[in-house]
Amino acid sequence: VSLEMDPINLEKVLKSSREALMVTKKQYLVQDWCKTEPLIQTLKVRGCITKYVLNNFCYGQCNSFFIPRTPKAKAKKTPFQSCAICKPKRYSMTRVTLSCPGRYPPFKRRRVKKISECACTSSQALQ
Amino acid sequence: VSLEMDPINLEKVLKSSREALMVTKKQYLVQDWCKTEPLIQTLKVRGCITKYVLNNFCYGQCNSFFIPRTPKAKAKKTPFQSCAICKPKRYSMTRVTLSCPGRYPPFKRRRVKKISECACTSSQALQ
Repeated sequence: VSLEMDPINLEKVLKSSREALMVTKKQYLVQDWCKTEPLIQTLKVRGCITKYVLNNFCYGQCNSFFIPRTPKAKAKKTPFQSCAICKPKRYSMTRVTLSCPGRYPPFKRRRVKKISECACTSSQALQ
Repeated sequence: VSLEMDPINLEKVLKSSREALMVTKKQYLVQDWCKTEPLIQTLKVRGCITKYVLNNFCYGQCNSFFIPRTPKAKAKKTPFQSCAICKPKRYSMTRVTLSCPGRYPPFKRRRVKKISECACTSSQALQ
């Protein structure tokens, strides 16, 4: 059994991809966060009276990792990979009617995605 | 100009999507992290002597946000959206030759992605 490696402190090196997966999971237990903060969204359409809608926006820091793993067959590479992003978890679609006095018809409808809650949500990420 | 909203502390509400974008950027300035940690990767093929390669794995917490924004035309929705994930930034492909005494030919080659550096990298995420 040979070990191809550069000089390094062997004590600290993890022995397997599975072990690495456990380490990342432990690190992740409490530290991610994703905030839901209020925001006034402007609905501006030419010829209509501007309306303002209370909405929320999301921002935060979510977990992701990439752990190399060797496939047993000579098939494709299969790293352990995970990615979460801070995005709307609960929302509703509401319809807002704008008044447009100089136009016919004198109104316009707009659909707005009203975000009620954001969360770190696991996501398939493009490479 | 009307404001459709629930009772809330108006002082705290951001006035526009652009303002929200600035807040998220400020929050993000220093806080994201993405570690590069050593890992022994096992190359195990039936009939061959197992080899171990020093590699690295990535894990961390990167920024993401989702800010609603109303498009001027009735086209598709265009939120400000960003997602970064902790993944290999620098790597090299190396070839490892396994010795397989009982087989013909008595060796097997495997390509390994050797990760040298991980970083929070912005990524297109599937919804």
